Amino acid sequence: MTYDATGVTLELATKVLEGQPFSTLLGTRLTSFGRGEATLELDIRDDLLQQDGYLHGGVLAYAADNAITFAGGSSLGPSVLTSGLTISYLRPASGARLIARAHVIHTSRRQATCRCDLTVHDDDGTATLCAAAQGTIIATGNSTA
Amino acid sequence: MTYDATGVTLELATKVLEGQPFSTLLGTRLTSFGRGEATLELDIRDDLLQQDGYLHGGVLAYAADNAITFAGGSSLGPSVLTSGLTISYLRPASGARLIARAHVIHTSRRQATCRCDLTVHDDDGTATLCAAAQGTIIATGNSTA
Amino acid sequence: MTYDATGVTLELATKVLEGQPFSTLLGTRLTSFGRGEATLELDIRDDLLQQDGYLHGGVLAYAADNAITFAGGSSLGPSVLTSGLTISYLRPASGARLIARAHVIHTSRRQATCRCDLTVHDDDGTATLCAAAQGTIIATGNSTA
Amino acid sequence: MTYDATGVTLELATKVLEGQPFSTLLGTRLTSFGRGEATLELDIRDDLLQQDGYLHGGVLAYAADNAITFAGGSSLGPSVLTSGLTISYLRPASGARLIARAHVIHTSRRQATCRCDLTVHDDDGTATLCAAAQGTIIATGNSTA
Repeated sequence: MTYDATGVTLELATKVLEGQPFSTLLGTRLTSFGRGEATLELDIRDDLLQQDGYLHGGVLAYAADNAITFAGGSSLGPSVLTSGLTISYLRPASGARLIARAHVIHTSRRQATCRCDLTVHDDDGTATLCAAAQGTIIATGNSTA
Repeated sequence: MTYDATGVTLELATKVLEGQPFSTLLGTRLTSFGRGEATLELDIRDDLLQQDGYLHGGVLAYAADNAITFAGGSSLGPSVLTSGLTISYLRPASGARLIARAHVIHTSRRQATCRCDLTVHDDDGTATLCAAAQGTIIATGNSTA
Repeated sequence: MTYDATGVTLELATKVLEGQPFSTLLGTRLTSFGRGEATLELDIRDDLLQQDGYLHGGVLAYAADNAITFAGGSSLGPSVLTSGLTISYLRPASGARLIARAHVIHTSRRQATCRCDLTVHDDDGTATLCAAAQGTIIATGNSTA
Repeated sequence: MTYDATGVTLELATKVLEGQPFSTLLGTRLTSFGRGEATLELDIRDDLLQQDGYLHGGVLAYAADNAITFAGGSSLGPSVLTSGLTISYLRPASGARLIARAHVIHTSRRQATCRCDLTVHDDDGTATLCAAAQGTIIATGNSTA
């Protein structure tokens, strides 16, 4: 299977996401993919919260990690690993849906660096930025990229 | 409720963890707590994996985030938020159990900085370091710490 | 002295920069300041290079740190400290001038989170992105902000 | 030239440091090198300070970056680049000397992940931890490592 840089569609990338049992557990959807960008969404269910009723920071970190990996994969090809991730938590996250939008800011043959904005959306459409991330994706050895 | 710095026991801190629905969903256990340190463990179930059969990087990021928050909370008191987290993924994680050990490297009145090592353990006891993290915890305004 | 959020001008912020002996050593100029943004520039002199003739990564980290602190200070007021910084090096940096542009992506009463793009500029005007950073600034206790 | 993993001595690594004009400008010395570890030291001169008389955060970031690169190079070989760096500032740094000690926590063929502790030392020998860093080094294409 190949990704955007070599002709992958949103449908094919969605199959990769569906092949992640942890993303299925969390109910993550891939709503946009390609040309160095990827957007993941998930509903903020009760079982994703922490002790004060906010979305658990670990869900935000997961979403940032995964969105960055898909964005990087759209540039580098399918054989990628996340090398590292930094996330800044800006405010407690509360709402109906989490959206993680990642985009590549630089690609070399073997590495892509990405940023990701994490926003929480209310049912009335209000969006609130709740975390910001930056991360690096590396192409693994089997890649021809 | 108070934490270690003001007399909290492992049992009481465990109640905080049990109050996190997301940690219940992942099956996380607090196996050590106090004096600037915290250890979290979880079984590597099939529904925590990514598409190649390894533990999803998002689970590692969650475990690092949470272990760092508990370690920082043992120094700063119970009213804490994670300000930021950096995680380096070292190798694909595969095994029976994940253990995230965090310890405080510096505390001021309002902030604690922590490091966390994430190891995967086989049933035969072999431990493999698979990720390393560093993060900052801040005491929130309502804290009496 | 106060900053942008309480009426500071570029001239006054420049005095703060001129009060930093290390910035004087490196020849840093503040070319833009205010409303959550700050731009620093420096000429890429021979004594700022590493062993292969590229700009030393430490100069890039310094410029990111300082640009983020000024951007955060324009929102939080003059009494600020940098809490943490993450920088991704994208390519070896070579050229006539380094420009570090930072902007605030979120501010609370006590904390500002910023991103910074570091570009190298040739004499003919070509700009090349060579590093990307994200960092957090905290207001210190004496601040009136 | 080769490094520790392939037989490099402290003397040879010191030549690499001396080949960095920026390190010469700052007066950096390599006091320990090899087996995945490196220690850099510099005197806290007046021209390395910020506006309040403390060591400039940019000097700390430079020292962390460089110590991590030497530590990683002792494992990966001489052809390395720093991919990314995270630094947490713990307290304002004041004293006679800065010491940055870095060690490798994991190495693969193409990448080394390191941690670095930055301490300030008074003339009477008191050491104070003032920053903590984590970073990743990658072997470049020409390396035979």
